[in-house]
Amino acid sequence: MITLYGAYGSPYVRKVLFVLAVKELSFEHIQQLPFTGDQEYLKINPLGKIPSLRDGDLTLCDSTVICEYLDEAYPDHPVYPADTADRARARWLEELAGSRVTEYAAGIFFQRFMRPRFMKQEPDEALIEKIITKQLPPLLDYIEARVPEEGFLFGDLTLVDVSLLCPFVNSAYAGYNVDPARWPRFVAFMERVKSGPVMKRILAEEAAALGIA
Amino acid sequence: MITLYGAYGSPYVRKVLFVLAVKELSFEHIQQLPFTGDQEYLKINPLGKIPSLRDGDLTLCDSTVICEYLDEAYPDHPVYPADTADRARARWLEELAGSRVTEYAAGIFFQRFMRPRFMKQEPDEALIEKIITKQLPPLLDYIEARVPEEGFLFGDLTLVDVSLLCPFVNSAYAGYNVDPARWPRFVAFMERVKSGPVMKRILAEEAAALGIA
Repeated sequence: MITLYGAYGSPYVRKVLFVLAVKELSFEHIQQLPFTGDQEYLKINPLGKIPSLRDGDLTLCDSTVICEYLDEAYPDHPVYPADTADRARARWLEELAGSRVTEYAAGIFFQRFMRPRFMKQEPDEALIEKIITKQLPPLLDYIEARVPEEGFLFGDLTLVDVSLLCPFVNSAYAGYNVDPARWPRFVAFMERVKSGPVMKRILAEEAAALGIA
Repeated sequence: MITLYGAYGSPYVRKVLFVLAVKELSFEHIQQLPFTGDQEYLKINPLGKIPSLRDGDLTLCDSTVICEYLDEAYPDHPVYPADTADRARARWLEELAGSRVTEYAAGIFFQRFMRPRFMKQEPDEALIEKIITKQLPPLLDYIEARVPEEGFLFGDLTLVDVSLLCPFVNSAYAGYNVDPARWPRFVAFMERVKSGPVMKRILAEEAAALGIA
């Protein structure tokens, strides 16, 4: 029996939801929030982050570690490319998306979405401006040069495609969308990733859970 | 032909040096420093971090991504466990070591080693105190409960063992050593990891390059 710990709205939880859905694995979904200080959850994940996953007596943390495990333990419908070099390229882009790109995009989300809703604070618009004008553009240029004109990065839709979309689902909740005039390939690519049946369903469920129309 | 970009002294570069050595792969080692703003290097690694690696026409960043690639492309002398669940456990501990644990241990290193040497600044001893007394202990407790009394985590010495040592090589340069009275298993474990012939040679070469006796 698989248990997923992690709340809707996390770009990292979304990756695992995608993999579980593609592989048609049944699981119990516990809506765990990150950084609550909950001592019971700290026993599962010493960093207090989400997602974590239990599969039998195996407890894992970190979305990439979890997704790699699920792909190896349940190999039907692979979510990483089969070729060794392509798999390495996919892992690097997943890492880039999940580290600095998410830091910036989730920064916008934190300021404009989380702060007003949960902390009754105004967003730091100067920080948002810096992210949008200085910090994200070189990374968007790097991604723009790598995503394909048509289709997905490595044949069929895989986890790396979803990983590149995930941070920008959060920034879109906070009113920031990648500029299609400046990064047209990446914007069109993200539209394709979003429009597949699995991602469409996951994003609809998440929006409903978050109370976003 | 393999090219490794990354300076001696980085806990992440050290991991890749270990894997290259175990697999007896020849490579060119470019002593690239991180975050120099060098535009040529930013084309290789858009984050300016180290290590990066080139193997033929494949360019990769991130130590974990690089090590996983090397293990799959050059499977002799594996550096990850063969069993799926153990491999996932190893990846999670490698991720924990390379994220928060390195952040804290490298924080001590940055304050006490890099700041005085390269920035002519005093270390922030209050920050170091917070790391040592508050931030590291719960993570050291978590690691202490998982490392074995004898031998290594998954049979022979593998990358996860080295990954857990790496942050504390840096903190030791800065005068912080894990307390053997409080975390005896982990301290003994690190001694075993350090004393193997490959790690002994890598650590000696690094100390010589850094001018540490």
